[in-house]
This record gives sequence, C-alpha cells and structure tokens, in this order.
Amino acid sequence: KKQYRIAVIPGDGIGKEVMPEGLRVIEAAAKKHGVDVKFDHFDFASYDYYEKHGEMMPADWKNQIGKHDAIYFGAVGWPAKIPDHISLWGSLIKFRREFDQYVNLRPVRLMPGVPSPLANRKPGDIDFWVVRENTEGEYSSVGGRMFPDTDREFVTQQTVMTRTGVDRILKFAFDLAQSRPKKHLTSATKSNGISITMPYWDERVEAMAKKYPGVKWDKYHIDILTANFVLHPDWFDVVVGSNLFGDILSDLGPACTGTIGIAPSGNINPEGDFPSVFEPVHGSAPDIAGQGIANPIGMIWSGAMMLEHLGEKQAASAIVGAIERTLGERTLRTRDLGGNADTTACGKAVAEMV
Amino acid sequence: KKQYRIAVIPGDGIGKEVMPEGLRVIEAAAKKHGVDVKFDHFDFASYDYYEKHGEMMPADWKNQIGKHDAIYFGAVGWPAKIPDHISLWGSLIKFRREFDQYVNLRPVRLMPGVPSPLANRKPGDIDFWVVRENTEGEYSSVGGRMFPDTDREFVTQQTVMTRTGVDRILKFAFDLAQSRPKKHLTSATKSNGISITMPYWDERVEAMAKKYPGVKWDKYHIDILTANFVLHPDWFDVVVGSNLFGDILSDLGPACTGTIGIAPSGNINPEGDFPSVFEPVHGSAPDIAGQGIANPIGMIWSGAMMLEHLGEKQAASAIVGAIERTLGERTLRTRDLGGNADTTACGKAVAEMV
Ligand SMILES: CC(C)[C@H](C(=O)O)[C@@H](O)C(=O)O
Ligand SMILES: CC(C)[C@H](C(=O)O)[C@@H](O)C(=O)O
Repeated sequence: KKQYRIAVIPGDGIGKEVMPEGLRVIEAAAKKHGVDVKFDHFDFASYDYYEKHGEMMPADWKNQIGKHDAIYFGAVGWPAKIPDHISLWGSLIKFRREFDQYVNLRPVRLMPGVPSPLANRKPGDIDFWVVRENTEGEYSSVGGRMFPDTDREFVTQQTVMTRTGVDRILKFAFDLAQSRPKKHLTSATKSNGISITMPYWDERVEAMAKKYPGVKWDKYHIDILTANFVLHPDWFDVVVGSNLFGDILSDLGPACTGTIGIAPSGNINPEGDFPSVFEPVHGSAPDIAGQGIANPIGMIWSGAMMLEHLGEKQAASAIVGAIERTLGERTLRTRDLGGNADTTACGKAVAEMV
Repeated sequence: KKQYRIAVIPGDGIGKEVMPEGLRVIEAAAKKHGVDVKFDHFDFASYDYYEKHGEMMPADWKNQIGKHDAIYFGAVGWPAKIPDHISLWGSLIKFRREFDQYVNLRPVRLMPGVPSPLANRKPGDIDFWVVRENTEGEYSSVGGRMFPDTDREFVTQQTVMTRTGVDRILKFAFDLAQSRPKKHLTSATKSNGISITMPYWDERVEAMAKKYPGVKWDKYHIDILTANFVLHPDWFDVVVGSNLFGDILSDLGPACTGTIGIAPSGNINPEGDFPSVFEPVHGSAPDIAGQGIANPIGMIWSGAMMLEHLGEKQAASAIVGAIERTLGERTLRTRDLGGNADTTACGKAVAEMV
C-alpha cells in the first residue's frame, strides 16, 4: 500500500491555527479508511520565515517539497507587514507557475447551517465547480509603461493564451463535467468585447466539445455570467474560465453560497509531474489571528480535496459528509456562523464524524 | 429657453416597442416641468436598415446625429440574423468610440415591486452608481495570433491604459462621489494579479484622490468586489472600474437588485463635444418582440438619465419618482414583474404620474 507524503505549510496568521485541525481530520479519516499518510512540516512561505531570512522560501525549496505527493497549505500574507507582491508572488504564485499547477479548482456548494445571501435557496440547490486556468491568460507579465510622468503616459499588459494552456484546462473541465451526473459545462467568455483572445478561447472550447459528445455545453459572456451566478446558480455544473474570469467566479460563487470563509481550493497539476497545493480560500486574517476562533472548515475541506486528488475517494467523501453534519449543528459551528465552538472544538467534531 | 434636439433611434426588436413609451414619458415630464424637447427619428442602427443597405449606418451618420444634444437609443442586435460584431460594433461601440463617450454610467438601485435575488434587502438599502471606462482598457484591438494551427499557436491581446483615459474617468467618478451625500468612492482593481496595468490604475486613483479630500475612497480586487456586491451591496456609493471590470459590475449590480430587465444606462461624453447615448441595459429580445409585453421601464429610466445629463434635474427626478410609484402597483407592472399591464399601459401609468 502506498504511503502518501504530504508537505505541510501552515504559513501565517490563522493558517497556523486551522492547520492542526486539518491534520487532525485527515488523520482520523486516514485511519478509518485505511489510508497511509505521512506529514512533513515546513516553516517557510510565511512572514516569520521572511523576517528571519529576508526571503519567503529557501533557495532549494523545490528540492524540499517538489517530491511530495501533495502540499497542504494554510494561508500566507500579512499586508500590514509585507506587501502581497512579495508574500503571495514569493510563495503561492511561485508554486502555481513552477509546479505547473494549471488548474485552480473550487467547489460552489450550498451547505447546511451556512446562511446564503441569496433568497430562497436551500442545500442541494447549488452544487457546482469552478475550473480556473492558473498559469497564463490575463496574469502575464508582458507589458510596460511609455512616456512616464507626461500627459502621453500609457501602460500596456498583454493577455496571452497558448493552445497548450487553453486546451489542457478545457480538457480538465470537460473530463470533470463528463464524470458528473449532469454532464454540463459552461464556458466564461467575453468575445463580444475582447476581440482577439476571447474568440480564440471560444474556438478552442468548440473544438474540445467535439471530443465530448456526451457533455452538454454553453457559454456566457462574463458580465451576464456573474449576473446568472446570482439569479440562477442552479443552472451550473462545471464552469470553466480564464485566469481572471476564473478568479472572479471562484470568489463570487462561494459568496453566493455564503461559504467564502469556509471554501477550499486546489491548485492542481493533473499529470502529477509536480505536487499540487490544497489551501482554504480565506487568507491569513491577521485581525482575528491568535484568538482561537478561526473557522477550520476551509482547511479541513481542502484536505478532502487533497485526498480526492490522491485517489482516496472514500476518505474524501467521509470528510465532506462530516463537514456537512458538523455545520448542521449550531453548537459545533464557529462564531462566524452563529455557533459557539472554537477552532479546536469544531475540528474535533469533524474528526469524530468522519 | 433652450430647445433640446434629441436623436431617436429605436433599433431592433423590443427597442421599437419600448421607445414610444420612453418618448411618451419624456413628453409628459417636459410639458409639466417646462422643458422644450424636439425629437428627430432615425431608422439606422437596426437589422432592418442593414438588410436594406448592407451596412448598419449610412456613411454620413455622424453628420446626421452628431449635432444633437443627445441620442435616445432602444436596442440593437438580432443574433440569429446578424452577428454581434457587425450589429453592436457597427453601431453602439462606434458611438462610444467616435463620439468619445468615455463614461458608461449605470445605477444600481433596489426598487419597490422588483423582487431581488438577495435575501433581506429592502428598497433604500441599495443605491449606488457604477462608473465604467468606456473606450480603452481591456477592449483594445491590439494583438494577434502566431503559429496558427500548430501546437505552438498562441494569441495575445493588450490591455491599454492611457493617463488621459484613466484620469478622465476617475475625475468623473470622484466628481459624482463628491456630489452625493455619502461622498464615497470604491475603485475596482486587480493589482495583486495583473501586475502592470492594474497597479497603474491604483496609482492614478491615489493621485486623483488627493484632489478630493472630501471623498472617502477604498479599493477592492475585482474577485472579492463581486463577492461584496452580493454580501454587502449597502457598502457602495460610487464604484469605478476599467472597461472590463465596469462591464462586469454593471451587469452584476443590477442583477443583485433584480433590475437587470429595467436598468438604464448612459454612454456619456461629459464635455458635450459629442452627443451622449442613453439606452436600456436590456437587448432587443427577439423572443418576446412583437407581443406588446416588453417592460418599458429601462427605456423610460434611460430618458430620466438623459434629462439629468441635459441639466433638467426636476424633470429627471419626476420620472424616477413616477417609475417607483408605478413599480409599486402590481396592476401597473408588466408580466415579467408579476403584473398584468402591457407595454403601453405601463408607459401610460408612468406618464400620468410624472
Ligand atoms: C455588447 C458588448 C460589447 C457590451 C460591452 O461589453 O461593452 C455590452 O455588454 C454592454 O455592456 O454594453
Ligand atoms: C492573491 C491573488 C494573486 C490570487 C489570484 O488572483 O490568483 C488570489 O485572488 C487567488 O485567487 O488565489
């Protein structure tokens, strides 16, 4: 039986507080479902490390964590102390690019016990995935500034879409759609306004769709698509978008289900050439750090995604089920969800139910 | 007393049905509040015109409508018969660019009688403006494709932001914020991911803010900003964004208030060098055209925005007030809002109340 080696990076702020609960639940699920996991702990990709060493990660970070089966990540960043372009670009974005984690995956799911800002929706009504391209597109670094500090000043930045980059994210999204009961894929575009890259995206979607005759697909321009997330969240099954559109939709989706504070995410290299990173969507939340009140569900749910990615479906669904049951009990929820459990009590509750 | 000359372009589909109601209401408000308007009617910028002449507009369209005080526009497009890049780019987008309508302005307002998809919000809770840059940014036409039809194929498209373009939209937005009781401006950015153009946008916002010490301002990355539209729509007063971000927010905002079918918009050249265009947000809706059931409120509300732009504030607010009273009565609303009035009955109701 294979032993999974997981690199554990708690990072900053509440990342350090929710991580132990994530590990507790994974251990419980692993034990129950006969999965063998081994955790290796790392202190880099954090402000503390940066303060000591003047850099976010050691020079040989790739050697240290590049052979692991996955990376379990808390949260990084502390805007008051360190700018995002150092903390995030020096860790998370580096992982995405250098470990070629070209899929960013997030569930949008209405959970019991989580108040949704949308009227008249109940658990079960909303249950879809956002698949985001995670390496190119609008987040290129190609561009610059001309005529600085004059009236003629201008800046440009290119959106870059490669056939390789677009096709592989679409393939992942179509595969995911095909594996689900509804077999429905929605593509986010803006080809009526962004006249070169977005028509190309549409073209590749059409070409890919031909290979998946069993998948129904449609497309919406991003403006009306965001509107439809609010008006008709039940329309969606798998939604795929470029780096920017996926970024927007994977915040808006969880917001619509009230779960932005507990949503998980995966930054995935599907081929397994490099480890994938699993992390809660929430940040390090310096304002509530150190009080033991952080909600550990995003961390725990990310653990379920990690086990699913490793092929341990049983253990993964056990965790998701335990999360749902825990959220359903007011006394087991943390304060942000109107409960009175602290971080540890909530984590223990999930661990007991897996 | 000045006579305003308005170019009237009904366009396609339900544009032709809602336009008479818009004119009816403007005439009523003008009469009541002593405003002198004259309408000149044009049949171009429509599919019918295109079918007859092989182009969306006559060669001398700028001469025909370029001297008017404003353009009152219905809706254009008929995707089953004519692709958007001909119909929209051949009319609306042309107006925006050639008449330098660099401001796209849309209200986000919770109205009586309009069901909102958000839970627990009531009229008065949500009332803000989205100010969108309307001529440059992500909608540039600079870019291209390389290595076509090979595995190395890629496309690029530049986002272009000029100091002139950014500063003038920010000035408009700050002026608007300063004129409102809350004096609060929110800027949409994504400088943590889009590393050249968006930090430039932030930089210009900071510079402009210095000139408006009375305006409180903040900024959000577009991903969390869309989330906050759903979670905290009461936070906003004036929201300013680039062409793409403004496009997204000005669909999402009306969706959150349930008003996407009745929202108005202005494509504005604030200096008055060229006429501005006022049009409902909804399209030509071929599926319901010809049945007399279209909701004319978007058209009528756009008329109020036009009068406001012309400096006729009294007539403008009289129309907005009449819209609110009309929407408050079930029998005066059209079917899409659960009423039983047809297009004309709804328009007449507003006209009577101005
Ligand atoms: C038709 C399209 C190009 C347009 C835009 O994105 O500008 C539309 O969505 C709008 O908002 O008027
Ligand atoms: C921090 C930022 C660059 C990042 C992104 O936009 O990719 C974040 O919003 C995310 O979604 O992980």
